[in-house]
Amino acid sequence: MGVELSKEFFDKLRQSYESKDGVQVKLLLEEMHPADIAELFEEIDLEDARFLFLQLDAEIAADVIVELEDDEKAKLLAGIPSEIIAEQLIGLMDSDDAADVLGDLDDEKSEEILSHMKDMEQAGDIVDLLNYDEDTAGGLMAKELVAINENLTVKQALGEMRDQAEDIDEIYYLYVVDDRNVLKGTVKLKDLLFSSTNQKINSIFDPDIISVKTDAGAEEVAKIMEKYDLVAIPVVDGIGRLVGRITIDDVVDVIREEAEQDYQLMSGITEDVDFSDNVLRQSRSRIPWLLIGMFGGICGSLILGAYEDYIAQHAVLALFLPLIAATGGNAGVQSSAIVVQGLASGDLDLQSTPKKLFKELKVGLINGIVCSSIIFLYNLIFSDSFALTLTVSIALFSVLVFATVFGTFIPLLLKKLKIDPAIATGPFITTSNDIIGLFIYMLIARLIFGYFY
Amino acid sequence: MGVELSKEFFDKLRQSYESKDGVQVKLLLEEMHPADIAELFEEIDLEDARFLFLQLDAEIAADVIVELEDDEKAKLLAGIPSEIIAEQLIGLMDSDDAADVLGDLDDEKSEEILSHMKDMEQAGDIVDLLNYDEDTAGGLMAKELVAINENLTVKQALGEMRDQAEDIDEIYYLYVVDDRNVLKGTVKLKDLLFSSTNQKINSIFDPDIISVKTDAGAEEVAKIMEKYDLVAIPVVDGIGRLVGRITIDDVVDVIREEAEQDYQLMSGITEDVDFSDNVLRQSRSRIPWLLIGMFGGICGSLILGAYEDYIAQHAVLALFLPLIAATGGNAGVQSSAIVVQGLASGDLDLQSTPKKLFKELKVGLINGIVCSSIIFLYNLIFSDSFALTLTVSIALFSVLVFATVFGTFIPLLLKKLKIDPAIATGPFITTSNDIIGLFIYMLIARLIFGYFY
Repeated sequence: MGVELSKEFFDKLRQSYESKDGVQVKLLLEEMHPADIAELFEEIDLEDARFLFLQLDAEIAADVIVELEDDEKAKLLAGIPSEIIAEQLIGLMDSDDAADVLGDLDDEKSEEILSHMKDMEQAGDIVDLLNYDEDTAGGLMAKELVAINENLTVKQALGEMRDQAEDIDEIYYLYVVDDRNVLKGTVKLKDLLFSSTNQKINSIFDPDIISVKTDAGAEEVAKIMEKYDLVAIPVVDGIGRLVGRITIDDVVDVIREEAEQDYQLMSGITEDVDFSDNVLRQSRSRIPWLLIGMFGGICGSLILGAYEDYIAQHAVLALFLPLIAATGGNAGVQSSAIVVQGLASGDLDLQSTPKKLFKELKVGLINGIVCSSIIFLYNLIFSDSFALTLTVSIALFSVLVFATVFGTFIPLLLKKLKIDPAIATGPFITTSNDIIGLFIYMLIARLIFGYFY
Repeated sequence: MGVELSKEFFDKLRQSYESKDGVQVKLLLEEMHPADIAELFEEIDLEDARFLFLQLDAEIAADVIVELEDDEKAKLLAGIPSEIIAEQLIGLMDSDDAADVLGDLDDEKSEEILSHMKDMEQAGDIVDLLNYDEDTAGGLMAKELVAINENLTVKQALGEMRDQAEDIDEIYYLYVVDDRNVLKGTVKLKDLLFSSTNQKINSIFDPDIISVKTDAGAEEVAKIMEKYDLVAIPVVDGIGRLVGRITIDDVVDVIREEAEQDYQLMSGITEDVDFSDNVLRQSRSRIPWLLIGMFGGICGSLILGAYEDYIAQHAVLALFLPLIAATGGNAGVQSSAIVVQGLASGDLDLQSTPKKLFKELKVGLINGIVCSSIIFLYNLIFSDSFALTLTVSIALFSVLVFATVFGTFIPLLLKKLKIDPAIATGPFITTSNDIIGLFIYMLIARLIFGYFY
């Protein structure tokens, strides 16, 4: 309803902007949501996007800029004079969005735009926000909020709100502060409506508030808002003064990005790319992990090289190299992934590391017994060499148990070293398990084949 | 602030419940947020959790139940009579939460509880909600909302809201409907406050609404709310009548679960497990993919088996088996992951499949040239066999290009077959790339070594 735009609509729009029919374009764009316009801009040529952009009302244009991806944003703004950006775009945005946009531009341009802003208070807010690290509560928050003094009456508070709320799109809570602007609690808009007008705010506000400090990490903010089902959370400074609020829509982006990042690390992609990025960027984001994998493969070849004559003698050993390597890799990734997820959701903090490893050891033992029994039976039936049968199943068992425990240990270690544990799930764990697996396999082969032959 | 509970606090709490000191427990629990109590329950013994649960106020107890994980919920409720569950727990929940809880219990118990409910309207709402599939808008929505007729005045609407809003925790929008209950638009609470009391709702409401139908998929709802930055979205039936609303907190859970699911599929875990699950469940969730990997390994051994004599003759070939297999696997997973993410975010719909594959081909060609050149130089320097040098680099190039395109194609194919494309990123793609990689390697080895020797 309202959001589905037909192919015909887009065809008509394309015809209009290709023939530079400004009037028609204006009419059609009015039917689109800013988020849809932004999506369109990312798919069409920059020149066309610029033409369309210039036909937009300032309010809508500002919303579209906010929705654009970073590189697209800079490209579109490149041709527009700073005065116009300041007055007609940045001036119409919420402070957090304005700071995001300016943060994506280079410092010189950003300062030039700020110097052209007429509303000094708003410019000051934006400069304040630009000081915070992007990945902290301070970097996520907006300055727009309704703060009311605890000593006001409901009637006064409603008046106060009327003054403050003009620029604010959505109000979820009113924040109650004392004379020093220290956050004391919240009042729901609903409760304000249902209270008698001369009641004091003091007597109706809810003092049980969950807030975050400006330096709290973005992921921590997301965790808290998710856990306590909050749509907005107040941000306070070191001494508890209210400085901003974070709304859930910004946090949803954090959650999505965090998940995508872990996913990309796991798949061995080093940069934040998506399918629409160009071939070179795609290639560049994948080469590093491919090279690490290759380095692992070369190490593997050196280990096997030490046994080359042995393999020539017992070529049948080579047949199961891929199986050993793959199973070790798979088992390791499984363990790491579960640990990384547990760390991300915060479930994992209560158990000690040895306890966790012991538990994984048990999982590894069970899986090792199941898999090695199957391969034992398989080789018992289909292979002529009992030495091979024994070697493959004992090696598979050892590799699986080792990989399972190792896959648990590495992300926990990384976490302790304050490195993102999600790195462990990438080709790193697969590669090292490959190498160690080969080593274990050849070691066991030597022992058993040495005994038999 | 307020959410951080100290270790001392938990020690004190443990002492109190271990000594069954109900008074002390009650006092301590009052300081905790329901979400924290739920988290605690998942970590302590069921008996202790039950004791604590019985000390809670009904309101808090209902909130705690809502926050618990499914299996924990059923266990905790197992000992409590249906009458009490109906009146003191379900009766105090929002309809969507109530339906979720009842949906997790078996049908008999759930019907028994419903039959004990005193508020027939609420019971009816819950029964309605239970009819919808969990993964649709209908399954996510709550019945609690404020709907006002378009013909009312602002004053009447405020009165109406006062009546309807008593049971509703958070109000974000008022929904405007016509006489047949068809959704016409929304009014922000703020706008209602700032309008003169005898204005008609008709003249102030915003008719540009984004809504979803009851049968829309949960992931689609999440995508829409994320894209348009909504905190609540109205749900309508087939003829546009307002039947419920979905709030962002439920959608955040959908986003999180979706991301976790893709992540687990990629890491080769078949059930939704986390670190706290017991050893057997952990093991069971991992065995299927390990077996598929082993099956791939056995296929690999059969391919290599056909060349056993050949490997005995040229044992040096075995040294690079792991490198070929690993690189193919890595390249395939990278491509699949990018496609799966693109499909999940909806960015990928505009390009045709051949165009996508052609683009990936180019990425594969670049990466293939880089990697195979490196391995060519490495072997040129360190290996005595030029045949090997040629074989390994040509095979690596072919495998890398093939794996890159194949890794793109499979998730697109799965999507077309209406199977979750994320399956492609699991051991499936690694395993098939392993096998095909070995095949290509031996084929090229035969050609080149045949020529040299």
